[in-house]
Amino acid sequence: MSFGACAELSRCFAGASIKPFSQNCERFVSLHRVVEGVESRAIATYSCGKSMSRDGVVARAMSGNQGLTYKDAGVDIDAGSELVRRIAKMAPGIGGFGGLYPLGDSYLVAGTDGVGTKVMLAFESGIHDTIGIDLVAMSVNDIVTSGAKPLFFLDYYASGHLDVDVAEKVIKGIVEGCQQSDCVLLGGETAEMPGLYKEGEYDLSGFAVGIVKKDSLIDGKNIVAGDVLIGLPSSGVHSNGFSLVRRVLAQSGLSLQDQLPGGNVTIGEALMAPTVIYVKQVLDLVSKGGVKGIAHITGGGFTDNIPRIFPDGLGAVIFKDSWEVLPVFKWLQEAGKIEDSEMRRTFNMGIGMVLVVSPETSTKILESNKVYKIGEVISGNGVSYS
Amino acid sequence: MSFGACAELSRCFAGASIKPFSQNCERFVSLHRVVEGVESRAIATYSCGKSMSRDGVVARAMSGNQGLTYKDAGVDIDAGSELVRRIAKMAPGIGGFGGLYPLGDSYLVAGTDGVGTKVMLAFESGIHDTIGIDLVAMSVNDIVTSGAKPLFFLDYYASGHLDVDVAEKVIKGIVEGCQQSDCVLLGGETAEMPGLYKEGEYDLSGFAVGIVKKDSLIDGKNIVAGDVLIGLPSSGVHSNGFSLVRRVLAQSGLSLQDQLPGGNVTIGEALMAPTVIYVKQVLDLVSKGGVKGIAHITGGGFTDNIPRIFPDGLGAVIFKDSWEVLPVFKWLQEAGKIEDSEMRRTFNMGIGMVLVVSPETSTKILESNKVYKIGEVISGNGVSYS
Repeated sequence: MSFGACAELSRCFAGASIKPFSQNCERFVSLHRVVEGVESRAIATYSCGKSMSRDGVVARAMSGNQGLTYKDAGVDIDAGSELVRRIAKMAPGIGGFGGLYPLGDSYLVAGTDGVGTKVMLAFESGIHDTIGIDLVAMSVNDIVTSGAKPLFFLDYYASGHLDVDVAEKVIKGIVEGCQQSDCVLLGGETAEMPGLYKEGEYDLSGFAVGIVKKDSLIDGKNIVAGDVLIGLPSSGVHSNGFSLVRRVLAQSGLSLQDQLPGGNVTIGEALMAPTVIYVKQVLDLVSKGGVKGIAHITGGGFTDNIPRIFPDGLGAVIFKDSWEVLPVFKWLQEAGKIEDSEMRRTFNMGIGMVLVVSPETSTKILESNKVYKIGEVISGNGVSYS
Repeated sequence: MSFGACAELSRCFAGASIKPFSQNCERFVSLHRVVEGVESRAIATYSCGKSMSRDGVVARAMSGNQGLTYKDAGVDIDAGSELVRRIAKMAPGIGGFGGLYPLGDSYLVAGTDGVGTKVMLAFESGIHDTIGIDLVAMSVNDIVTSGAKPLFFLDYYASGHLDVDVAEKVIKGIVEGCQQSDCVLLGGETAEMPGLYKEGEYDLSGFAVGIVKKDSLIDGKNIVAGDVLIGLPSSGVHSNGFSLVRRVLAQSGLSLQDQLPGGNVTIGEALMAPTVIYVKQVLDLVSKGGVKGIAHITGGGFTDNIPRIFPDGLGAVIFKDSWEVLPVFKWLQEAGKIEDSEMRRTFNMGIGMVLVVSPETSTKILESNKVYKIGEVISGNGVSYS
């Protein structure tokens, strides 16, 4: 399987999808803990590289004006898998619930993520007040896939020299993201590390913790053929694939200040559009019942993310004209000469979250929400497009 | 108050010390949450800069062969305080429990931290297999100050290009740190961000969550004059003050491979000694009762960290010859011509954790543990040395 698939599988596990580990590209840590007198076992999943890793590879691997793909990323695919193999040796343990920590009658669900090289577009565009929303979104959108309510968030903001104006904008976005998620910004670290970060640059990482009753856990195990895929609209590229995005931009000869072809915003504005935080919408839909599985569409797109939550022997058919593909994706594909299949396994294409529900539930959801019926669950494996 | 004091106060709060916010150098976020039907309110604390921030300033501010101090750090002290003021405006809320999230009859206690510029010594020394222990230590040692048992840890490992050999060593240290803390490595993010990080360099951040019963919370509120300060030995510099350390090293004309003056290891080995993880020792002592307050001695040393957990009107006298100051500190002070007061407010000086207990409890603890009686609680404020 591809590194991207691995990465997104790991992220999907970190997002608390429930499926026995079957690939070799997670790291496991298994330790026994006794919490509040309840013997519990937690199995950790560990990303062997996120889409930003693939991006990084792409940024190095591609050249000239050729059509842009991830196919040249073989070296680091091997590196990621090799790292996973080594970690697995030092941290034995198999199967289980990634990112879930049993606590009484509930699970604590934890996720961590960054925003990848989207930060570099923030540097280049000077748009710093929404990257914090992206940061919160990447973690809370993962943990809500289990039906968990985010409780709190912590951030790590590291720079070479503290620029108060920039930091203020970044933290403002983090606060906004927490408010959109109805969770508490419980703490944070502001690290100043001259020599490690270049002047004007910074990195961000975030950690979110949520909680879900064990008997309310959404784990995909009841998904059957005929179930419906409900797509929730994205705001754009969100926070994945940005090294590829930056490569396309460089190749296009356009600047962040140029008008987005086919759009009514600049390319910078379109690319920096903050990641949608789906927490309230998803929890509202979940509270009404009938939601069997949830997939956060990050790097790897539908192709890699949707099957993660399916029981074995099930796949998905996507109705590829069932929603509006945003102009930014049309421009990226054209400017980068990117194949359809590459687009679909790299970007969200306008759908940032997918809910798997029964046909009956889908009818109710479609009546009263701005969402799309984007496909169905079928016998088989993987994702096909019709 | 100094930036360092602010930073360490924030960290102390992040470590779940219970004391109303009185300084202007935290950021607050106050949101209401209903968790599991229990109305709870969490007030977030936010670091306005850690010791590494001060370090960064020092690294820029100092020059030549003068005695090394933090006094020239004024510009960034202002920057940190200014950032805090701005954040406070956008995230209103006052007082409360830093880093504590009420959950039923317990608090979830969360902390996040990095290892500052100690990572750069890892690059320079090629010692990568213990920096992960430092990473775990910085967060779990904070949360255990509230008496909380660490439950799980997540890490963020970011580099420009994934070096499998280096990453394996770093993660090995993180796994070791989690095992020493008896907590689960529940997840992690391996980010590859070419262009942001230089070849061969990386940054780390970590996030720990623990739990403590509300009626078992250690908050320092019962501390009275006459209580005893019990010091737990450190392994060396731990993970604070490394930009100053690196400055001293550069000024000393010695290399990491040289023998530590007065020691039987190299300077590199002495400086990279992993931070002691006090979780098991502290929780064992706490389980026996009588522990009123706990201070994690990070950047800011005794001077800034110990008073954080005291009720107003109490201070501490430290018996400065009551424990063995490690050779690495003697060398740093001599090579850097650092004043005693600067040393004490920058480094742990050989004591990484301080427990405040009644005289009766101290007698029992001192009988059966390799710990030191390093001082007493007195009426007044701040820390004096005799």
